[in-house]
Amino acid sequence: MSDRTVTMEDTISKLFAEKKFSVLKDVLATINGADIAAVFNGLEPESLPLLFRLLSKDKASECFVEMEPDVQEKLIKGLSDTELREIVNDLFVDDAVDIVEEMPADVVKRILAQADPQMRREINEVLKYPENSAGSLMTTEFVALKPEMTVRQALDVICRTGVDKETIYTCYVVDQSGKLAGHVSVKDMILALNDDLQMRSIMNPNVISVNVHDDQEKVAEDFKKYNFLAMPVVDDENRLVGIITVDDVMDVMEDEATEDMQIMAAMTPSDKTYLRSKPTELFVHRIPWLLLLMVSATFTGLIITKFEDALAVQVVLTAFIPMLMDTGGNSGSQSSVTVIRAISLGEVDWKDLPAVVWKEGRTAILCGLVLALACFAKLMVLDRLVLGNADVTLSVALVVCSAMLVTVIVAKVIGCTLPLVAKKLKFDPAVMASPFITTIVDAVSLLVYFGIAKSVLF
Amino acid sequence: MSDRTVTMEDTISKLFAEKKFSVLKDVLATINGADIAAVFNGLEPESLPLLFRLLSKDKASECFVEMEPDVQEKLIKGLSDTELREIVNDLFVDDAVDIVEEMPADVVKRILAQADPQMRREINEVLKYPENSAGSLMTTEFVALKPEMTVRQALDVICRTGVDKETIYTCYVVDQSGKLAGHVSVKDMILALNDDLQMRSIMNPNVISVNVHDDQEKVAEDFKKYNFLAMPVVDDENRLVGIITVDDVMDVMEDEATEDMQIMAAMTPSDKTYLRSKPTELFVHRIPWLLLLMVSATFTGLIITKFEDALAVQVVLTAFIPMLMDTGGNSGSQSSVTVIRAISLGEVDWKDLPAVVWKEGRTAILCGLVLALACFAKLMVLDRLVLGNADVTLSVALVVCSAMLVTVIVAKVIGCTLPLVAKKLKFDPAVMASPFITTIVDAVSLLVYFGIAKSVLF
Repeated sequence: MSDRTVTMEDTISKLFAEKKFSVLKDVLATINGADIAAVFNGLEPESLPLLFRLLSKDKASECFVEMEPDVQEKLIKGLSDTELREIVNDLFVDDAVDIVEEMPADVVKRILAQADPQMRREINEVLKYPENSAGSLMTTEFVALKPEMTVRQALDVICRTGVDKETIYTCYVVDQSGKLAGHVSVKDMILALNDDLQMRSIMNPNVISVNVHDDQEKVAEDFKKYNFLAMPVVDDENRLVGIITVDDVMDVMEDEATEDMQIMAAMTPSDKTYLRSKPTELFVHRIPWLLLLMVSATFTGLIITKFEDALAVQVVLTAFIPMLMDTGGNSGSQSSVTVIRAISLGEVDWKDLPAVVWKEGRTAILCGLVLALACFAKLMVLDRLVLGNADVTLSVALVVCSAMLVTVIVAKVIGCTLPLVAKKLKFDPAVMASPFITTIVDAVSLLVYFGIAKSVLF
Repeated sequence: MSDRTVTMEDTISKLFAEKKFSVLKDVLATINGADIAAVFNGLEPESLPLLFRLLSKDKASECFVEMEPDVQEKLIKGLSDTELREIVNDLFVDDAVDIVEEMPADVVKRILAQADPQMRREINEVLKYPENSAGSLMTTEFVALKPEMTVRQALDVICRTGVDKETIYTCYVVDQSGKLAGHVSVKDMILALNDDLQMRSIMNPNVISVNVHDDQEKVAEDFKKYNFLAMPVVDDENRLVGIITVDDVMDVMEDEATEDMQIMAAMTPSDKTYLRSKPTELFVHRIPWLLLLMVSATFTGLIITKFEDALAVQVVLTAFIPMLMDTGGNSGSQSSVTVIRAISLGEVDWKDLPAVVWKEGRTAILCGLVLALACFAKLMVLDRLVLGNADVTLSVALVVCSAMLVTVIVAKVIGCTLPLVAKKLKFDPAVMASPFITTIVDAVSLLVYFGIAKSVLF
């Protein structure tokens, strides 16, 4: 949303509206495909093919992959079979697969009909892997070299075939049976250009690879850990079947973070951008969780009902319920979100449970003591003296503050434990964030509060 | 935390404990530096230099940059000046800067004393830019080519100087005054190897660059948008001063997401990993927010106190306070987290406020109606019939359900508006997440609830 983009979009829209197509063609040639795609996302369906035809062949596919899926669909409907064929066969396989996965069946049929046989085979190869697996992320367009090739021969291979490859910067050396033997970067090749060596002597045989069935979250973790530009994907026999490039992993990282945040805020994750989601779609993603959490709040209601008589006598106690519940909920969600993120980043695991509980327990005691003291001061000074609420007696203050201390400690320990338990049980730890913790902590804090109140005040 | 890593760490620790140093040396040579760093993170300070001396020169710096800052510090203290000099001068400038920024003054002094003059100058160059700016992320080790160079000359330059460059895959063409004239990838050079052209004819003159003072969040957005491997950084006169590589941007993306999540859960962000944070550090990051939110909950207390007499008559109303407040809080945080994430990803901006409110408003009406109906059914069937709570009359149920509807709508509209207002006022929108929204929504829901109750029941 930089100023630069906005101005450019305006210029293009203006030239397009004024039908200055030849000027527009020259302008478009100087602009990055991703920026042009942003213009397409804002156009009427009937204008899409018109503007698209002004793009050069390379720019057209560069731009096409960056459009929103619904825009791609509308555009495809406006293109002839010949035009569609040109785009489809110009795409990288992983991009083609992404598009096929988003389109309705009739559009997919048209796309596959226009793909040439080699492309169609490769699309189908990638399509057979489950969503979110390494196989579904990979592309089959990589540079494979033989161990006995010299640097010059290898560069010659790259020179001849590289234009269709997703990356040429990391090349893979495979033996006769297709097994991954090593990796070699173009940097190493160029640096060894003057003393012409064989691949086997410059390649690194200790290749880190992922299995086609590995989860994309593991793939992203490995990319960050090793700072790779590309990662080889192998089958169960260690045969090289594809590569995953860093640009696709950045999308995965972003999607995973978004998904975690959505789940943490009690929503079913969606991969649609916000402004393109309809209210009914947002509704569908949100209402089941709201209903579930509302029904769970029945317990807190039951607890209050059980202590109704006590409350009728000491109505002042009611005034501190929200403060206790909120502070408990906030304390618990601090711990749960911290642990959920640490799990996502691969920093903690089930085996760290004792260390995590010990750390959170000590943090909780510190937080609880300070909060209880502050609360005591607030009750005795603000509520009793300044606001003159005579019902806030010393015993009431002591009840509220000790309930506060216990609630904060319990909330933090529950908050750090549940995500790890969820992980162990193969649930998504993010489910155990604020809303869920809040519901449990509400009930706990009320039980603690009324329990202490009963033994002290009645 | 894959099984592979764990086993490897165990093997290394075992060999090290048994002092089988020559076997260990061979084993270490086959392992990626990032994996070796994980072993260092678990060692006693006195063992660090011993194991470090078993690494080859390249592996040593590869491994050093991946260690946790406190481990780097302990290791440096155990190394001789000569050993330190070797590592420091082997680092990429951006990595050296990261390390210098994390170390205490005495260690920094030792590092800079050992850096050769060129390295020291470059470190100081990068250090002068503010934290989180593009300048502080960049490295000054890039390949700069001249427009009149031929492909062979350019590859020769890369061949001679490339080994010290952070990346050679994107090279930059600069004119005589140091201004950025174009970029050219090694792929383009290799593909043009057979017809030897000048840089000016194969370079792309439409370079997308960032300014040294741009925020790192903008840099990350541009990387994702354009799928770059490296981005040129220019000064105000468009002179090329450095490049940012994709591996550093992945770290930025991850840190920004972590920071957003921490702020959303009402914590001061920290860049220390969880298991390395002391309870006192966690406490310091959490307590100010808990105190602030606890004190804000005074308002809800005041509202309840004000309606105390009404509550004393109809104690049954108290039982539904937690359910109303929680459902309101959850509804509001769904909206706020969705909008906060959309702002972070650059999808929505202040100008989208009307569209966002309109979308959330309609979603809120749908959610509110369903929740109110479900709540009505729950009250009349579960609470009244099944649990036999005769206090739950039809009018009480109607009061609770209409309060629910209004609360959900208000919560969602507040939830989506506040992050955009924060953004407009140059605050971090993430501050406006669950805990903050919950505190406001609590007060609103009570006012609505008691307001409706008063007019219907009394």
